[in-house]
Amino acid sequence: MASKFVIPPPKPGSTRALTQKDLQTARSLVSFPLEPMTETIFGSVQDYERKQYLLNLVMKEPLFAKHDRFHGSREDRLLRALAMTKRLVELRDENNLSDADMHLVRQLVDETIPMSLHEGMFLPVLRAQASPEQAKHWLPLAESYQMIGSYAQTELAHGSNLSGLETTATYIPETDEFEIHSPDITACKWWIGSLGLISTHTLVQAKLILKGKDYGPHLFLVPLRSLDDHKPFPGVTVGDIGKKMGFNLIDNGFLMFEHYKIPRTNMLMRFAQVTRKGEYVKPPHAKLAYGGMVFVRTALVRLAGGSLAKAATIGTRYACVRRQFHVMNANKQVAGVSSSEETPIIMYPMVQARMFPRIAESYAMLFAAQGIEAMYQDMVKRLDSFDVSTLPAVHANSSALKAYCTGIALDGIEEIRRATGGHGFMMSSGLPYLLFNYSPSVTFEGENALLTQQTARYLLKQLHKHQTQAEPLHPFVEYLELISSGVGRKSDRTAAVSSPADWFNPAVQLAAFAHRAARVTGELAHAITQCGTPFADLNVECARASKAHSEYVLVRTFHSTTRKILQDKPALYPVLKLVSDVFALNTIEKSIGDFAEDGYLVHAHVKHLRAALKTALQDMMKDAVGLVDAWAFSDYELDSTIGRSDGKVYEALLETALADPVNKGMNGKAVSLGYEQYIRPLVKGERLQKKSKL
Amino acid sequence: MASKFVIPPPKPGSTRALTQKDLQTARSLVSFPLEPMTETIFGSVQDYERKQYLLNLVMKEPLFAKHDRFHGSREDRLLRALAMTKRLVELRDENNLSDADMHLVRQLVDETIPMSLHEGMFLPVLRAQASPEQAKHWLPLAESYQMIGSYAQTELAHGSNLSGLETTATYIPETDEFEIHSPDITACKWWIGSLGLISTHTLVQAKLILKGKDYGPHLFLVPLRSLDDHKPFPGVTVGDIGKKMGFNLIDNGFLMFEHYKIPRTNMLMRFAQVTRKGEYVKPPHAKLAYGGMVFVRTALVRLAGGSLAKAATIGTRYACVRRQFHVMNANKQVAGVSSSEETPIIMYPMVQARMFPRIAESYAMLFAAQGIEAMYQDMVKRLDSFDVSTLPAVHANSSALKAYCTGIALDGIEEIRRATGGHGFMMSSGLPYLLFNYSPSVTFEGENALLTQQTARYLLKQLHKHQTQAEPLHPFVEYLELISSGVGRKSDRTAAVSSPADWFNPAVQLAAFAHRAARVTGELAHAITQCGTPFADLNVECARASKAHSEYVLVRTFHSTTRKILQDKPALYPVLKLVSDVFALNTIEKSIGDFAEDGYLVHAHVKHLRAALKTALQDMMKDAVGLVDAWAFSDYELDSTIGRSDGKVYEALLETALADPVNKGMNGKAVSLGYEQYIRPLVKGERLQKKSKL
Ligand SMILES: Cc1cc2nc3c(=O)[nH]c(=O)nc-3n(C[C@H](O)[C@H](O)[C@H](O)COP(=O)(O)OP(=O)(O)OC[C@H]3O[C@@H](n4cnc5c(N)ncnc54)[C@H](O)[C@@H]3O)c2cc1C
Ligand SMILES: Cc1cc2nc3c(=O)[nH]c(=O)nc-3n(C[C@H](O)[C@H](O)[C@H](O)COP(=O)(O)OP(=O)(O)OC[C@H]3O[C@@H](n4cnc5c(N)ncnc54)[C@H](O)[C@@H]3O)c2cc1C
Repeated sequence: MASKFVIPPPKPGSTRALTQKDLQTARSLVSFPLEPMTETIFGSVQDYERKQYLLNLVMKEPLFAKHDRFHGSREDRLLRALAMTKRLVELRDENNLSDADMHLVRQLVDETIPMSLHEGMFLPVLRAQASPEQAKHWLPLAESYQMIGSYAQTELAHGSNLSGLETTATYIPETDEFEIHSPDITACKWWIGSLGLISTHTLVQAKLILKGKDYGPHLFLVPLRSLDDHKPFPGVTVGDIGKKMGFNLIDNGFLMFEHYKIPRTNMLMRFAQVTRKGEYVKPPHAKLAYGGMVFVRTALVRLAGGSLAKAATIGTRYACVRRQFHVMNANKQVAGVSSSEETPIIMYPMVQARMFPRIAESYAMLFAAQGIEAMYQDMVKRLDSFDVSTLPAVHANSSALKAYCTGIALDGIEEIRRATGGHGFMMSSGLPYLLFNYSPSVTFEGENALLTQQTARYLLKQLHKHQTQAEPLHPFVEYLELISSGVGRKSDRTAAVSSPADWFNPAVQLAAFAHRAARVTGELAHAITQCGTPFADLNVECARASKAHSEYVLVRTFHSTTRKILQDKPALYPVLKLVSDVFALNTIEKSIGDFAEDGYLVHAHVKHLRAALKTALQDMMKDAVGLVDAWAFSDYELDSTIGRSDGKVYEALLETALADPVNKGMNGKAVSLGYEQYIRPLVKGERLQKKSKL
Repeated sequence: MASKFVIPPPKPGSTRALTQKDLQTARSLVSFPLEPMTETIFGSVQDYERKQYLLNLVMKEPLFAKHDRFHGSREDRLLRALAMTKRLVELRDENNLSDADMHLVRQLVDETIPMSLHEGMFLPVLRAQASPEQAKHWLPLAESYQMIGSYAQTELAHGSNLSGLETTATYIPETDEFEIHSPDITACKWWIGSLGLISTHTLVQAKLILKGKDYGPHLFLVPLRSLDDHKPFPGVTVGDIGKKMGFNLIDNGFLMFEHYKIPRTNMLMRFAQVTRKGEYVKPPHAKLAYGGMVFVRTALVRLAGGSLAKAATIGTRYACVRRQFHVMNANKQVAGVSSSEETPIIMYPMVQARMFPRIAESYAMLFAAQGIEAMYQDMVKRLDSFDVSTLPAVHANSSALKAYCTGIALDGIEEIRRATGGHGFMMSSGLPYLLFNYSPSVTFEGENALLTQQTARYLLKQLHKHQTQAEPLHPFVEYLELISSGVGRKSDRTAAVSSPADWFNPAVQLAAFAHRAARVTGELAHAITQCGTPFADLNVECARASKAHSEYVLVRTFHSTTRKILQDKPALYPVLKLVSDVFALNTIEKSIGDFAEDGYLVHAHVKHLRAALKTALQDMMKDAVGLVDAWAFSDYELDSTIGRSDGKVYEALLETALADPVNKGMNGKAVSLGYEQYIRPLVKGERLQKKSKL
């Protein structure tokens, strides 16, 4: 029955007619030019155009259509993902796509699929850590997919604690081989992306054992499945780990070894080496292998911004067209909407407070990503000439920002989902799927809570160096200066704010973040040096310091980007200044206690802050849709009924439902799935008749 | 290959051998007797025993086994859910199960299935709003499932705004019928549980139109599908709305009418009525229909506590057995764990800070549920004699607590999931599924952000009444008293705290919550009365006041429960006092700005608070597993590999993976799913060969 229904055009004056105009109207009010903003976000027009080119390539392929992406069982969907993998490799070859192109293509397709870890981890690690001879042998095979790999570090019982890994690689001089072994199921490799189905090889992190001595985890290229028929070799137990919260189109796998032999030369030997005699040759620079980790964390900052931006695009557009109640309030007056019309929910202060800061956070993260990427590039250049001087700062800041940004991105996606009300619970809204697949970002590549300990260590070290050796401070930790100058005592310092307007002064904002970062780091240092509290008892305090540091860096970077925009693209300045204000003020407001508990902010300051934030949010209303449109997500990427660029949300919701396979079952016969077997006996009271016959 | 693997017993001294002892050790340290705690939670031994009885009933049925619950497509799973529905009705009849039993059984089975809304909404609303004659006719059919129903209020374009519904019910005196009509797809009923597949009837909220006049939404019992063959009647378009973030085993449906006729007598006529002549008869008491809504919100408070308790059980048990790193810290010393053993993550302050407050929140919510349920029962008795005096307080408090508790429960489930690291991302951990299915609680039965406006209105009304008519205050809003006495000015009031120990004084805790609730409500009132800000511009301020109120009520209730325990079950007092402290102090810490921004808390107070909380969390460590065990969730209910009561988490994870259908595909042939079609061509380089042949 259902699927015969055809959606009529909207009648004039109807809710739907209104809805279809809403985004148009909203767009007509935007105060800034979109193109230069898009260019600012993409870095260059070329990058934007490249994306459009790739988008067209992908959208042509029925395999990458999204309308049926949730249909079928996980097995069905995995098969599709394998087909996608194969097709993407073909597309790469047909169109000479670069690694960067492929990375982008996978983002457009918006699925983590069996090829993802092969390209995202296996290849880069091989490139970075194989010796030149190894690389020459393996890379051509890996790049042409004749060898498909993965990165097998985590075990059932050990993830964060790398040194706790139980898998061993014992050198056997007699045969010039390593014996890879899993002493117990706790040593079972687990979580390994691209391993469950597709890997022919994998990079195993195993404890290197030479003459009975444990040299700690090293990497080995291990053949797993026969290149003839893909059967696992004897001694290898491998499979898929099963269903996950997200990432269900990739074959995260498990792997155990039973005294499994590989040639000595399968250890990755660019840095450390093992000789024919079973002697260990140390790597020349212990920290050189860090580069890859830093790279991934840097990439995760951009991805955090991009993921939240996606959610914010969906949420903001929906909030423009969703109308609920006739409430007349200041925002509605400002927007000139008649009281007889229902109020678009974007005009409710609570919806603004839930959504607009997420737009601002997305911008903040994208700008921070540009900054940290530049720092990374600079570091890589230096590393080439063995200059490791910038590594600690890049490492600490990429860790801090990875933890902070992935955290607020995930929180933000969920906040937006909730703020959309019921429709955000539909898979077709795009928000749940984004949430599922984004979720592991807070866990992998350094569990977020743990990363904050690394940042804290760095901060303490910088402070110590500065205080003892008068070493100049990296700009991102300039605020540590304040500690020596006696911050933390209430009477010392207080915000220079005597009206809401003062809060729009970037210097006032940054001073608040500097003061707070200095205070919490100062207190952490104090606890250790004055009170003798061991670092290990100060997890929570470390997290507080790392967060304060990250927020300082994000605000600082946003400010400098905005200043630069004033020079380069002055037409964008007013709106970016506003977004920057919303970011800074809302971020203070979220942790107001951190700023108020020592009296740096007093009651009047806080009231002014809230007033300033309220004004800023209200001002942002007219530009909200422009700010999200500027990110230039295509409808294909968003794959959202409620975030469609044309605002036809109700049509989209209904069409998706009508096409659902559950309803297809009702076609023709026009009765529900399961009727004969389960519903009919109930309704016909067969149970009761049986009873009465007894 | 994979599935042939057999897990060996753990070797002495291995990680796994340690893991298997960990929960036992943890349990041996618990300081209080479990049984009386379980009894306190269940209310009575009988209730606990009834649950065990029902559990046995359900666990015997293969249909309710959980190991394969995520297998197959949604269609497969819906069929299973229909089979479960049928079987549960049979079980009900075979065992004379009551409505309360059935409610509990559905919780044990832990799925929202097609019967859920029939029993949870259709029946109660029929009972409450059908006239005696209607009830006599319909209830026997509905109770025996010969009529299966649902509750169709929400439309595509209107959810929260009931008065915006577009579906009409126009009386046609000529035929004594109502014509039910959906003027556009925006009027399409949407989200309606039990409608997509199973409903034969539904209760439609439609605007009642009599002689051209709109009387607003009323309820109509509408036959949808033929009792003969389940085919939708002409004029009815009905189907399933498709995939959702959770709730995928229930057939939430959509529904449109094309000038569809039903008898006049199908309007529910217990309160309002329409006569044969098409005259409207008003309900005697406008508010009487509120009861049901209050009941559901009350139930959601208990469910919030129970859902978070489940997550906390999983998280806490896992944290006892998960070991990571050898870090020696104060907690590890306290626990007497040797430095050569890896540290159970429950001993990390950060893990404690993320998990233990969730245990405390679960207890707080369960006690608040007991309180609000008693208030509700009392109200129902009064309503029978038309005494509506307690309705406003019960309505406002159930709304406030519904919004607050569902919010912290959902946040808490996710916080625990993240704190478990990677394994919390496995579906088999139980945490993602809990999250998916719990999520809509913040949206339905009153969207949380909107509910806070209702609470705020109530608070303002009480304040006004108290100030103008000197009306005595309900105990839950006693704090409003402080407003008249000049709270809010910094110099007036400050916490009576001069050491961490002071924070363990319940009077000090409650005073802080009272002060803060009074301040934020006072500021809200001030904004309206002194500054003339319209209520509609104060959404954010309303949310702040509602939260402050809810926290005051929860702390107050926890305190009084603890005091009662001191009388009734003194052996439980110390641990409950501790849990109550953790709840109160952590709740302050989460919103420290609210307490510090006006100087009620100064820097020293906050430092003392953090110190007190840290001690309390550390003290809670030894009892954590006891506190979650006391909730008495069976392994069947938890359905969690990592939350198993025997702590064999690694075995459970691996066994679940080995049994996954993706790996079954590898059986026999021993090659991966999709090998022939997709992997083989890649690995064999067929693409490359083709190319070179060109
Ligand atoms: C989707 C997904 C894909 C993945 N892909 C791969 C892959 O391809 N290859 C691979 O090798 N791995 C992969 N992983 C594994 C991932 O790297 C780990 O999950 C991650 O490193 C976290 O480790 P864990 O799960 O062991 O968490 P744990 O370390 O067990 O953390 C559990 C909890 O303990 C806390 N904790 C631990 N130590 C401390 C401490 N010292 N102080 C305070 N708190 C502490 C943590 O903060 C956390 O709250 C993947 C994981 C996921 C979820
Ligand atoms: C799983 C599930 C099952 C359901 N089952 C049923 C069912 O069986 N029967 C049924 O009839 N319905 C059902 N519903 C619908 C549910 O009742 C609605 O989703 C709910 O009432 C919220 O309404 P909405 O979705 O229209 O949100 P909206 O009202 O559109 O809310 C969207 C956003 O706007 C904000 N907003 C709206 N008005 C205001 C205002 N005045 N001031 C400030 N902010 C505002 C909200 O706070 C929210 O952030 C179900 C929903 C779900 C998710």
